[in-house]
Parts: sequence; C-alpha cells; structure tokens
Amino acid sequence: MSRIIALSGGIGGAKLALGLASLLPPEELLIVANTGDDFEHLGLSISPDIDTLTYTLAGLDNPSLGWGRRDETWSFMETLAALGGETWFRLGDRDLALHVERTQRLRAGETLTAVTQRIAARLGIRATLLPMSDDAVRTRIRTPEGWLDFQHWFVREQCRPVVLDVAFDGAAGARANPALLAALRAQPRAIVICPSNPLISVEPILALPGVRDAILGCGAPVLAVSPIIGGQAVKGPTATMLRELGTAPSAAAVAQRYGALLTHYVMESAEDAAGIAPKVIRAPTLMRTLKDKIALARTVLAAL
Amino acid sequence: MSRIIALSGGIGGAKLALGLASLLPPEELLIVANTGDDFEHLGLSISPDIDTLTYTLAGLDNPSLGWGRRDETWSFMETLAALGGETWFRLGDRDLALHVERTQRLRAGETLTAVTQRIAARLGIRATLLPMSDDAVRTRIRTPEGWLDFQHWFVREQCRPVVLDVAFDGAAGARANPALLAALRAQPRAIVICPSNPLISVEPILALPGVRDAILGCGAPVLAVSPIIGGQAVKGPTATMLRELGTAPSAAAVAQRYGALLTHYVMESAEDAAGIAPKVIRAPTLMRTLKDKIALARTVLAAL
Repeated sequence: MSRIIALSGGIGGAKLALGLASLLPPEELLIVANTGDDFEHLGLSISPDIDTLTYTLAGLDNPSLGWGRRDETWSFMETLAALGGETWFRLGDRDLALHVERTQRLRAGETLTAVTQRIAARLGIRATLLPMSDDAVRTRIRTPEGWLDFQHWFVREQCRPVVLDVAFDGAAGARANPALLAALRAQPRAIVICPSNPLISVEPILALPGVRDAILGCGAPVLAVSPIIGGQAVKGPTATMLRELGTAPSAAAVAQRYGALLTHYVMESAEDAAGIAPKVIRAPTLMRTLKDKIALARTVLAAL
Repeated sequence: MSRIIALSGGIGGAKLALGLASLLPPEELLIVANTGDDFEHLGLSISPDIDTLTYTLAGLDNPSLGWGRRDETWSFMETLAALGGETWFRLGDRDLALHVERTQRLRAGETLTAVTQRIAARLGIRATLLPMSDDAVRTRIRTPEGWLDFQHWFVREQCRPVVLDVAFDGAAGARANPALLAALRAQPRAIVICPSNPLISVEPILALPGVRDAILGCGAPVLAVSPIIGGQAVKGPTATMLRELGTAPSAAAVAQRYGALLTHYVMESAEDAAGIAPKVIRAPTLMRTLKDKIALARTVLAAL
C-alpha cells in the first residue's frame, strides 16, 4: 500500500484533505494536522486544526461561519459572558463537547493521537487523521508588544499586532508522530502540502525533529498547493504575515519558503511563476464547493 | 446586625432559602450550602447544592425540570453522547458555563467561597451564599456493591443500591467556612435548618469540626423544617435512605436525627409529633409557588 501523506493546517488545508478523502481509498490517505495552534483555554485542551479537519472530513463543518461545527448553538458562550467569563475565543455548545471529551481523555493519560483517532472513528472518518506530535508544540508570535501565544495574537488580538517573528516553542524537543515517521519510511506515493499558511500551519510540522529529512529522504514527490491567490490568502493571515515579515505575498513567495522540499507546485494560472523551482501545475485553487475540492484533489493526484 | 444562618442542601432547602431571602434584608441572611455532593466530572468541578441555591436565589431555576437552569439547551450533551462521552450526569449548555468558570477559577487558586460569591453577585443575589467549607468533603454511600461516590449512587445508579452507611470523606480534616464560624460567634438571631435531606445535605455541614459545638454554644434558637410529609420526601431519596438505614421515615425521625441541636421544629399538621423534644410549629411545608416559599419563611421567622 502506497500512501499519500497530506500535511495540513485548518480551513484551506481541510478543504483539500476532504477532496483527497473523497477520491482515495481510506487506507491510502494519511492526514497530518498541525498542532502548533493548540492551546489551553478555560481549562480545556483545544486543537483548532485537528478540529477543523475532523469537522470537515465528517461533513460537520459550519458552512455559514467557515469555522466550527454545523448546527451549532451558543447558550454556553452567552451564559459565560453573563458570568463574566472569558469570551474572546468563541466555543459553540456542540464544539465544546469535543474539547471536554478530549481534555478528559488527555488527563486520563491517552495520547492526542489516540483521542483524535477515536473521535474521528466515532464521527465516521475513514482516512487516518493524526496530530503532528503527541508532545506540546506552541506557536508564538513576536510583536512590538512582546511574544504572544498564537491564539492570543490570532483571535484575541485579531492579528492586529505586527508580526516580527514566529517561533514554535517545544518543537525542537518534541517527537514527530511515530506514525508519520513510519509512513515516510514506508515509500509513500507522495507528500501533499495542503493550501495552508506556511508560516504557522505547515512549518510547525516541518520543524519537528526528523520530519524535513524524512521527507527529503523518502524519494516521493512533494507537492504543495498555493494558499495565495492574487496576492491574498483566501482566509486567514497568511498574506499579512508574509508582508510583515518582509516578503511580498505571492504564490511564488510561498513556494520559496518550502525551498528544496518541493517537486511540484499547484497555483492559479494568473500567478507569476518566476523563480519557482519545482514543476508548476496551473489549476483553479479556490475551493468553494465540494466539487471544487474534489477537482483540485484530482489535479493534485494527476500531477503525481 | 443579627443574622439568620440557613443551612441548606439543594432543591427543598433552596426553596425556603428563597423565601427567607424574599423577606429578610440581604445583610441579615447567611445561606450555607452543603458541598458533600460536590464532585469532579468530565474534568469539571461541580457543586450541585451551591448551583441549585444560586439558580433558585437568582430566579434562574428550571421550573419544569425541578433542577438545573432555566431556558436550558442540550446541544453539548447530545454531542457528547455522539462522541461516546459519559452522559449519565446531565449538564445543560448554560449550566456548563458555570462549571467551566468555577473549575477554571479554582484551578487558578481561588477558593470555592470566592468563586461562589463572585458568581452569586454577578447573578444579582444579594444575600450571602457560602459553601460549608473550601476544603473537599465527599459524601460516600456504602452499598452491598461497596462504597460509591455520592453522585454515582444518586444519579448514575438512580439510588437503586441499598444504603448501608453514609460517610463524609474529608470532613474530619476539613475546615468549616471561617465566615460560618464567625457568624455563629457573632450572636446570630437563629439557625434555620432548611427542609433538606438530613443524611446527605445537613449532616455533612454538622460534621465539620467545630460547627455543631458552635451552634450549640451560640445561644440562638435552632429551627428545622421537616423535609418529610406523609412519610415521603417531597423530592429526593430522604425517605428511602432513612428506611434503608433502619428508621421509618417520618417528620419525627428527622427531628430525632438532629437531637439536642433543635429548639424549634416546623412540620405539617397531620404528622405525628410524638417523641419530638423541641417546640413544634405546625404549618404547611410543601412549597410549590413563590407564595408558598414566602409563607413558610414567614412562619419560620415568626416562630423565632
């Protein structure tokens, strides 16, 4: 069995992951979620990218919000506000059940991998979904106000403080998910870097000891899909972050961040491919509908 | 200022507490909640009697369920069931906000007293509401299956296992709430034992070091309201527990448990007062409406 290994952050990555899951037999797809965005909030262990992938792959994503869970209700949050609690990170009543269940199982000694897989199975997800590591890696953002935890910068501060630097606390000492390293050793068919934010969704995975070398050494093609269209990210702070870190946001700028890792790069026809070393595949990368997601996944698989 | 100190468990006790709060200036009423029913569940610190008192005093109690919170929704519980989580203890979405907020503040080092008072103030409760102790006291029930945590016996097992014994783990080493002991030293006007289950709602309070002696030594009248009408508890397992522990359930049996502590006892006209040592006040004790609660509170205050 030769597997596709997809590295993914949240929303954009999850869309392509769903497309891939719609086309591939479940045993041929391994989806690896960034956990650098994970944090502890209100005493709960929250894993935003795992959750977005879980909800998207299970068909439970919230189409009107673009994040969180379908058929959501907000009684908890309303009441927490009335009690004077912290409400900057919005947790729906249904979403909360996942966080409470995960937190309790982690405290009981289960790994994040075990919890993620149990919940995925329970919700009918057949492809394998793994956290990048069972150890805590925490993305932090350096701003003129000092270092901020990622979700404080991203959600509480609404990305307003200028980004001066990004760090992945704990990454150097964390162990990459053994199942990821094993899959990289087992002659994968390809590695797909989903259209996620390179700086905060993909690079935390690549920062784990052994992952970059294993990708380079596995001999499989490595294909990334650009998260940038027309100098803008479809969603999220990718473009702003690139700009604040001194790079004009473009599809090419993202490819350059991945450097020698890439063999293939999927980007929009209108984007400038100058300076991109890997093989360029031109395709529509905006995924609004399930059909779009499957079409892009088909393009990706055809290129490999 | 001479205070009424009300000792209370959950539902029945909270009704009389609300009656008292409707009649007394807030600074003259101190309500002390049993915390023997408290437990940790799904990683949350849950204080059922404090919560029932809080919701009742704030006018937020759920009139149709008879427990929990008004205008409740159940998305969390539904979703937790779908995820395979523990659902034997039902937590509404709004109720959950209180548990999450309390748990987080306790973990941050606040006392249960501080958390309880902050939430009570936030919800507009003007009388003082205190937990009996800031230390953990855990009521346990001995059954033919062994010792069970109280909520496991009460909710999960629906009171089915026969009660052989009741213990208050941690009570001997716990410190009674200093504000309760101070109020008992400050010449209270009276102590009112609300119509709660003596075995599991009132006796945990009396089991705290110094409380019984302080009540006996304070010189104030001690009035209890019978939780038994016609050999039955209005709600909850009081009658069954008394019977299983070898006592025919009656108003008199409850008075006898309190023994020398009582100076006054309020009970229904139809109940047998034989063998009751304290002064008996006959009154309707069933509280369906706010009017009933205020009427009983008025009877109590008139007797003192």
